[in-house]
Amino acid sequence: MENKLGSRPQVTGHLSRARMLISCPDQPGIVAGVSQFLYEHDANIVQSDQYTMDPEGGMFFIRIEFDLPHLDARIDAFERDFQQLATKFNMSWNLSPVSHKKRLAIFVSKEDHCLLELLWHWRAGDLDADIAMVISNHDDMRGLVEPFGIPYYHVPVTPDTKKEAERRHLELLEGQVDLIILARYMQIIPQTFIEHYNNRIINIHHSFLPAFVGGKPYAQAHNRGVKIIGATAHYVTEELDGGPIIEQDVQRVSHRDSVDDLKRIGRTIERTVLARAVSWHVEDRILVHENKTVVFK
Amino acid sequence: MENKLGSRPQVTGHLSRARMLISCPDQPGIVAGVSQFLYEHDANIVQSDQYTMDPEGGMFFIRIEFDLPHLDARIDAFERDFQQLATKFNMSWNLSPVSHKKRLAIFVSKEDHCLLELLWHWRAGDLDADIAMVISNHDDMRGLVEPFGIPYYHVPVTPDTKKEAERRHLELLEGQVDLIILARYMQIIPQTFIEHYNNRIINIHHSFLPAFVGGKPYAQAHNRGVKIIGATAHYVTEELDGGPIIEQDVQRVSHRDSVDDLKRIGRTIERTVLARAVSWHVEDRILVHENKTVVFK
Amino acid sequence: MENKLGSRPQVTGHLSRARMLISCPDQPGIVAGVSQFLYEHDANIVQSDQYTMDPEGGMFFIRIEFDLPHLDARIDAFERDFQQLATKFNMSWNLSPVSHKKRLAIFVSKEDHCLLELLWHWRAGDLDADIAMVISNHDDMRGLVEPFGIPYYHVPVTPDTKKEAERRHLELLEGQVDLIILARYMQIIPQTFIEHYNNRIINIHHSFLPAFVGGKPYAQAHNRGVKIIGATAHYVTEELDGGPIIEQDVQRVSHRDSVDDLKRIGRTIERTVLARAVSWHVEDRILVHENKTVVFK
Amino acid sequence: MENKLGSRPQVTGHLSRARMLISCPDQPGIVAGVSQFLYEHDANIVQSDQYTMDPEGGMFFIRIEFDLPHLDARIDAFERDFQQLATKFNMSWNLSPVSHKKRLAIFVSKEDHCLLELLWHWRAGDLDADIAMVISNHDDMRGLVEPFGIPYYHVPVTPDTKKEAERRHLELLEGQVDLIILARYMQIIPQTFIEHYNNRIINIHHSFLPAFVGGKPYAQAHNRGVKIIGATAHYVTEELDGGPIIEQDVQRVSHRDSVDDLKRIGRTIERTVLARAVSWHVEDRILVHENKTVVFK
Repeated sequence: MENKLGSRPQVTGHLSRARMLISCPDQPGIVAGVSQFLYEHDANIVQSDQYTMDPEGGMFFIRIEFDLPHLDARIDAFERDFQQLATKFNMSWNLSPVSHKKRLAIFVSKEDHCLLELLWHWRAGDLDADIAMVISNHDDMRGLVEPFGIPYYHVPVTPDTKKEAERRHLELLEGQVDLIILARYMQIIPQTFIEHYNNRIINIHHSFLPAFVGGKPYAQAHNRGVKIIGATAHYVTEELDGGPIIEQDVQRVSHRDSVDDLKRIGRTIERTVLARAVSWHVEDRILVHENKTVVFK
Repeated sequence: MENKLGSRPQVTGHLSRARMLISCPDQPGIVAGVSQFLYEHDANIVQSDQYTMDPEGGMFFIRIEFDLPHLDARIDAFERDFQQLATKFNMSWNLSPVSHKKRLAIFVSKEDHCLLELLWHWRAGDLDADIAMVISNHDDMRGLVEPFGIPYYHVPVTPDTKKEAERRHLELLEGQVDLIILARYMQIIPQTFIEHYNNRIINIHHSFLPAFVGGKPYAQAHNRGVKIIGATAHYVTEELDGGPIIEQDVQRVSHRDSVDDLKRIGRTIERTVLARAVSWHVEDRILVHENKTVVFK
Repeated sequence: MENKLGSRPQVTGHLSRARMLISCPDQPGIVAGVSQFLYEHDANIVQSDQYTMDPEGGMFFIRIEFDLPHLDARIDAFERDFQQLATKFNMSWNLSPVSHKKRLAIFVSKEDHCLLELLWHWRAGDLDADIAMVISNHDDMRGLVEPFGIPYYHVPVTPDTKKEAERRHLELLEGQVDLIILARYMQIIPQTFIEHYNNRIINIHHSFLPAFVGGKPYAQAHNRGVKIIGATAHYVTEELDGGPIIEQDVQRVSHRDSVDDLKRIGRTIERTVLARAVSWHVEDRILVHENKTVVFK
Repeated sequence: MENKLGSRPQVTGHLSRARMLISCPDQPGIVAGVSQFLYEHDANIVQSDQYTMDPEGGMFFIRIEFDLPHLDARIDAFERDFQQLATKFNMSWNLSPVSHKKRLAIFVSKEDHCLLELLWHWRAGDLDADIAMVISNHDDMRGLVEPFGIPYYHVPVTPDTKKEAERRHLELLEGQVDLIILARYMQIIPQTFIEHYNNRIINIHHSFLPAFVGGKPYAQAHNRGVKIIGATAHYVTEELDGGPIIEQDVQRVSHRDSVDDLKRIGRTIERTVLARAVSWHVEDRILVHENKTVVFK
């Protein structure tokens, strides 16, 4: 599909740059083992962040960004060799070459601000990913999306077509996307779907969780008379609004603000928070442990 | 009692300055009526803030600060005359000469940061009130309080002495204080007490209400993995942590922060938020309507 | 011109709503005089904010929002009558019916984030104004603007064509716009132009003024090693980056952020700050006195 | 000297915990070399943060926190061995056992808010250092300081006694302190002094540097009409207000705020910012490179 809005800046991929996320039970020698491995494989660490939950017997998390010349040719051998170290330390790990852009699917309903923010960041070159598709239960935003050269799929969802819609969604996504973003998508996500894309579905909830779970959070906030409102980006789990929190932000409000004012102010918080969470996921900055996130900013 | 810590700056009261808070059902002519009244009584408005909940049939709130020469000599007549206007518009109102400082009682248990912040603001001349007494269920902070020349009353509270403690509290406070501040006072306030000091008891809750009501909010916050924590100052009502919110503030935290870190970070939020709420009450900036506050900052 | 992006929500204007901004030397009786005038003319005040610089001999500023039935039919008489009061108190004043939308011209060069933010707010119904035109010294953003049904004028500016460009600008704007917005327009505004649109040209400067006036503020900020960067919206005056500040905001940065990171982070601050400043101007919330603004939020 | 204010919580030192700060030109193998060294010396890394200015040919910075059993007995050998690695990589480095508390001297004049904040944090156990002394050119705060059991030295500074005061300062400090804090100390620090305590003198400047360098920054800010004010903690260098910035923070203000209001609001920013900067220095979180800081929070 042609992009009618002009070219977006080419993010000249660091062809030799890759990122690793590793988590394992803490024990002496992990950093030494990993950094020695990287050194012996010609990789130069350009950034690393580490966090240990509790020095004695807790979990160890690390994010390493490194440069490895001729990465594409050597990655298979590198991964094979690394698995030995991983086995020794009982690591969960994954390696992402920066040049392999993650593919996103954005789900949206009738509110466009979160979608627009993502499109804008992407267009400005600030979101280093491919937007594979936009899926909506309405046709309203086709005109916004297609000029960017992004496929737009209208999949209506009614009580009768729910099962069919789910099948259609999975079919569209299968093998095509690495991350699903619910950009104010106002439909329940089925359980099978959540399991299939475990820790790969990001939702934006329009409240400062855990305050005001469920529906109409701005009306709830207005009713309670809070002086600050917020929004929360989180991974989607079985429990409604209960998944691991990635990012939150807030804004002051006052007695003068009506529910509509809260919605208007909230739109800016929602889009900012969602865009940050998506960037961090795309840049492999997030590890999930139990029901919490470790975010290496 | 002598103040051993040196003199605090004398806030040379504006002897002619007063503040009015008025609320009534909205209708045309209120501002005209009030401002005409003030003009005819020689009062010059130096600040006014107004809020109407809903132009048609809502509530009207106004705060007016004015200068009236020889205020003390004229206040009785002024109030008597104003009552006629108030009756006409069905107003709730009160008038506070700035020179009549409000008298505060601070309740405290074992955590001193909120108490110290209030003492410090008071000492710096930033809290324009009299601290009539500090009451605690422990004797620990006597040494902090008495050097300021402020009476300190140790009233132990145990399941057996609860009724007696309550009687002692009311006895100490009766006719002596205009505002009660629960500065991390860890005892339940009895219902009779709350009714007696309706909208005149300010509590600081160590969470961003309505998230994490009840006990151990920092442990709750840590457990939920929130990225921002907060504190809330509110008037005390029958419903635990459910009273009208006066002020809230927040601070970013991360996965690195333990429950103890949250407590440490939270202490700064708590004392800042409480100090602001107390200042606003003291400066007659707060109106309560139903379960919300109108704060004219 | 047709709008291809679908209808924006119709802000059903308050046909009877108007706003007044008044400034004059302070003296007793102003509020009484104005509110009595409004009452006698059937106007019901729905909001008023007042500020007096210094009770004795300073300036008095007030913003009043009121409802007056059949406003359009009565406005001429209202204004004529009010001028008598204005003369008595030596007032500068203006009256804006809410239904008379202000007309904006947006100037832009090659960076589109500020333009896009304004277009989105406008499209979402959050910016209650008409965008009369976009003027640019480049043709790049025509494709972004015209789908909204907004005229786009490409007026190249070179050292040779400067005078001609200025003439073309004035010709396009004459009688068509109430507010000019420099949304990262990278050309010097000529003096005649500034005088013609005194306090009606808003610029966004990409630093926390007065830090880093002049060119390349993000490079300057990076070089100085600041921990917070900001942006400033101000009215344009003769002195470069020296006009009355309307709004500022900031964001934390760290040693990790390169100049490009600062630019990226800064883009979000710039567009947010500019959008707020423009909204406040459009809603008649800003008074300018000497080189400062009074903003009634 | 006896502490009359009761015991502060004993921060049960991590007897085996130490922190290293290392900076050197970047090259492959540094992390591997350091982590291998630590592993071989029985040290378990509990946290590490790294920053490379520019992958190719830039500077490399790392902060490592580790546990080494029997640290005190082994530290000399550890340091001797490490120097070999340090020489190989051309490292600047230092090692701080957590149990060796840093000793602070606080300089103060007539404003007490920054001093009080530091004393409270220290008293609450949040500032893990020893306050060796408070030095002032006035005697006013003796009564605040001595009850904490901290020596207070009154060293008057007049044009005539300047040299003598400097000599007295150096004599008091010599061998007794690791960090000097200028907590609103309103005297010029002599050049010899700055050189002697290079990157070990922290000053709090009451503006958002580089805006409003020099005297009376709040009056300058009021005059310019800024909408946000700030404070800056920085290391003291020869250039007035020009040293490496450690931390900054800001607060919103409005047209209503007088210069005195700005001072009052600013006091809270100043004390918060200074306390954070001091904590970070004490916890070995700051590296200085050229005129900037790398802060590992």
